[in-house]
Amino acid sequence: MIKAAVVGYGNIGRYVIEALQEAPDFEIAGVVRRDCSDIPEELSSLRVTDNLSQLDAHVAILCTPTRKVEEYALQALALGMNTVDSFDIHSNIVELRRSLANKAQECGKVSIISAGWDPGSDSVVRTLLQACAPKGITYTNFGPGMSMGHTVAVKAIAGVKAALSMTIPIGTGLHRRMVYVELQEGYNIKDVAASIKQDPYFANDETHVIEVDCVDNVKDMGHGVNMVRKGVSGKTQNQRFEFNMSINNPALTAQILVGAARATMRQQPGAYTMIEIPVIDLLPGDREDLIRHLV
Amino acid sequence: MIKAAVVGYGNIGRYVIEALQEAPDFEIAGVVRRDCSDIPEELSSLRVTDNLSQLDAHVAILCTPTRKVEEYALQALALGMNTVDSFDIHSNIVELRRSLANKAQECGKVSIISAGWDPGSDSVVRTLLQACAPKGITYTNFGPGMSMGHTVAVKAIAGVKAALSMTIPIGTGLHRRMVYVELQEGYNIKDVAASIKQDPYFANDETHVIEVDCVDNVKDMGHGVNMVRKGVSGKTQNQRFEFNMSINNPALTAQILVGAARATMRQQPGAYTMIEIPVIDLLPGDREDLIRHLV
Repeated sequence: MIKAAVVGYGNIGRYVIEALQEAPDFEIAGVVRRDCSDIPEELSSLRVTDNLSQLDAHVAILCTPTRKVEEYALQALALGMNTVDSFDIHSNIVELRRSLANKAQECGKVSIISAGWDPGSDSVVRTLLQACAPKGITYTNFGPGMSMGHTVAVKAIAGVKAALSMTIPIGTGLHRRMVYVELQEGYNIKDVAASIKQDPYFANDETHVIEVDCVDNVKDMGHGVNMVRKGVSGKTQNQRFEFNMSINNPALTAQILVGAARATMRQQPGAYTMIEIPVIDLLPGDREDLIRHLV
Repeated sequence: MIKAAVVGYGNIGRYVIEALQEAPDFEIAGVVRRDCSDIPEELSSLRVTDNLSQLDAHVAILCTPTRKVEEYALQALALGMNTVDSFDIHSNIVELRRSLANKAQECGKVSIISAGWDPGSDSVVRTLLQACAPKGITYTNFGPGMSMGHTVAVKAIAGVKAALSMTIPIGTGLHRRMVYVELQEGYNIKDVAASIKQDPYFANDETHVIEVDCVDNVKDMGHGVNMVRKGVSGKTQNQRFEFNMSINNPALTAQILVGAARATMRQQPGAYTMIEIPVIDLLPGDREDLIRHLV
């Protein structure tokens, strides 16, 4: 059995525990939380600590905010644990990989980074499609679904009490932003909408701001992707590929994290993105059986 | 530059040469044909031989009939070349892998087997979807497109002068067979249709047999796939995934073979299916650049 520590108990952490409970080859070494004074009912049967070093684990599954990933990963590697994360700042992935690769090699351990759905499983499909038709364009269209980053940006704007920013795909990699806000007293929607549309997160996209009584009533955690590539295989034009999914966002992220945690046990020391590991390593079970059923 | 020998010059072989000519990191070591007496115009600038041992290559790209793959692969490995093939008899893949793994390890070389689109790139998607939602069913729906295996089976039936068997997807992994035949003199379509429908290739599928004046007029090399998975991530039901493609069949197979040939240069000695190699290894170029653009 692979012993996994779950670091962080927000949305993703909750779903990671469910995925670990369903996996045939994992046991939960424990959960790391900043605040251990008030432990929720559903964790009563698990070890909960505020210090990862208290846990005996092969792999730490990092469910922290993305900006905390590097710090916790370096700590886990130093403690002799492999790590997985769903770090999602696309422009900093190479940097994170370098940093963790150094530490992982020093410690003889493995980190698999950016192992969610985008970056993550989508990256595997994007890479495969590039190999299928090396010349061409891949459009990744997100949604409809909630954008965490955009929602956080709206919440930071004066006058916003609660917010939800939905990403709506309009094709060719472009997106409409539908922003639902609850206002603080004394603010009006026209001014708040103007501030939102000026924010760099929204300035380049078609953005609509709508006032609602209760943001919570319009929130759901479903999300989607539509990825399209039209390209050239060899000298043959017009090869067409499409990948669609409609999913519960944290549940899929959590499931991929657990698969990646399994895969850390099968790599040489170092840091890897999902496109650098064989997809078979994400799965439990006998290798020849998997080949027989999946190839 | 990776030096590649192309073994066999049928449909796939022709497209492999095109894909190699377009690849930035390959040169063509030569082409192996059984009959070198009559060399087609388009090969005039290439070395053509009936003996692989005459060529200086890092990797042999096997474009032979599927039943000849093992024999040619063992020969190429013994000559110190890596091999790739698009072996497509699903039930014998594990066996081929064992056989080539032994030889490859003995020779310190690499074989990547069943590297077409199904088995091949579809296998990578199937495996990834299994990792995304471990419980559930994946349906692979083929077509519309020509089935080589079924077409050959029809041609073997008495009274058939020429034939084309088209695979039409009807959902949930089931297929209709549309068979177009040119009859030999003295045969009638009713008897031939009955024979076709009794053949084990057709007995379990809805099959329609249609007489045509000229099979060649209805032949095209386009093909398609629609792969669907609905499953469970952790404890969350109803996660939905779909992969579609509409492609020129031999052009895609050839492109994947060339990517796999590249990937042979980056694996430890042994034999691998596509799900056992990192997708990034299919692509040329700097690794960090690829990660920056694709992850």
